[in-house]
Amino acid sequence: MDYFSEETSTDTVNGRIGATADPRLRLVMTGLVEHLHAFIKDVELTEAEWRVAIDFLTRTGQICSGNRQEFILLSDALGVSMLVDAINHRTSVGATETTVFGPFHVEGAPEREMGAVISLDGKGELCLYQGRVLDLDGQPVEDALVDVWSDNADGFYDVQQPGIQPQWNNRGIFRTGADGHYAFRGIRPVSYPIPDDGPVGQMLAAIGRHPWRPAHMHFRLTAPGCKPLITHIFVGGDSYLTSDAVFGVKQSLIADFLPADAPPERWQTRFDFILERLSPSD
Amino acid sequence: MDYFSEETSTDTVNGRIGATADPRLRLVMTGLVEHLHAFIKDVELTEAEWRVAIDFLTRTGQICSGNRQEFILLSDALGVSMLVDAINHRTSVGATETTVFGPFHVEGAPEREMGAVISLDGKGELCLYQGRVLDLDGQPVEDALVDVWSDNADGFYDVQQPGIQPQWNNRGIFRTGADGHYAFRGIRPVSYPIPDDGPVGQMLAAIGRHPWRPAHMHFRLTAPGCKPLITHIFVGGDSYLTSDAVFGVKQSLIADFLPADAPPERWQTRFDFILERLSPSD
Repeated sequence: MDYFSEETSTDTVNGRIGATADPRLRLVMTGLVEHLHAFIKDVELTEAEWRVAIDFLTRTGQICSGNRQEFILLSDALGVSMLVDAINHRTSVGATETTVFGPFHVEGAPEREMGAVISLDGKGELCLYQGRVLDLDGQPVEDALVDVWSDNADGFYDVQQPGIQPQWNNRGIFRTGADGHYAFRGIRPVSYPIPDDGPVGQMLAAIGRHPWRPAHMHFRLTAPGCKPLITHIFVGGDSYLTSDAVFGVKQSLIADFLPADAPPERWQTRFDFILERLSPSD
Repeated sequence: MDYFSEETSTDTVNGRIGATADPRLRLVMTGLVEHLHAFIKDVELTEAEWRVAIDFLTRTGQICSGNRQEFILLSDALGVSMLVDAINHRTSVGATETTVFGPFHVEGAPEREMGAVISLDGKGELCLYQGRVLDLDGQPVEDALVDVWSDNADGFYDVQQPGIQPQWNNRGIFRTGADGHYAFRGIRPVSYPIPDDGPVGQMLAAIGRHPWRPAHMHFRLTAPGCKPLITHIFVGGDSYLTSDAVFGVKQSLIADFLPADAPPERWQTRFDFILERLSPSD
């Protein structure tokens, strides 16, 4: 008889999953129960700690709204988002590495002329971004859509400040030609804290972590016949590169931001993106 | 340099915990991250599954209200509540076993005369509950408060039906005398489903589990010089004894409900509770 006991808890709970359950769901739930019970046994969770956890999860759900997703923030802060990204985007050697998508992308940004300025609020230090979109053989990728977005000089994305920032501020889409070249002018982005006035901020404070992300420009690249790529390029020298609150930094994504050759830009950076061609099995 | 990678994810995240963190919190969070990352790696969680999980947790938080705690329900349904109970109440051999407290206890129930009827709505089949409160040496425990509560014959606790059921319906506290004896008249409780119209109910349906709990009477016993005891006694023969939705059943807590000797009761049951005396170190 499989009544519950500390020793057999995992088997008892997982033994109840019905024959009708979807096989993949069964595998995921079985793994969840195994690891969740093992965690509780390892740390010998007290009843008071269990109550704190219930309260924390409840408040994390209740602070979520149309503009705020605290559970994604929690996933980010525990390295879960980066881990899921890593597992689902194991790139071939030579291809540009991925990092987290983040919560601030907006579909439908305007497609702009190559080289256009995406900073619309006149704030910040202008920077020329340029480089090429290539495949693993070094061949240019034509018709790639290079979708870019960043915070403004105050550390906020336009969607965080509707009515304050112009719509599509620091956003744009650029389409490569036959040479695979892209160029646009944005600001040199600034580091900013993830929202830390809720449960996740309280957790970070309790475990002695800061909420800051190093400055970065977001990129999403899509091109016919290629795997999509979601990544950032990080501003070299940022003081939070080694302590990104969401663990997004990879060495290969750090770029040098150098003084520009001529005004109006103050900075310039060069980064080539290497996409993987889709194989017939993809 | 400890940039994030699939291989080193746990160390990278746990390596960030600051020197100021409370040692116990550090231990709990470190264990949480280890097991959470191991789970994701074991099942190779997809991005679509991660989104389902984020949505599930968000909805679980958002349905919580003053009357409903869906995260406790989730904890119950995954065997977590019973596991925390088991770890925190390892009873000595011979002592009555514990089970989950549940969400329906109310502090301040009326203390009633020994033998009194606690069912106030006239529904259900009356049952005489009696037995003794003893210590591990078989000595009676005097001045034990026996706090009892159950659903009514429709399967609802009074707090689930304010304005429909009388206040304190199927609740009462009884104080033992020198002989340690207790007795009261309640109903023979009925099995009932945990609330299954929210995310937890959807989860149970998806994994092929039903939401039912076998019929039970709740007990909380407190007495001077003894460890408090929170438990149920279950109605022998109930069809859900082997598939309690919250895994609360233990063999030693199943009682025989026998025909009563005389009206007005229809049933009678006898159960002795064995408390542990507090040692000087408790």
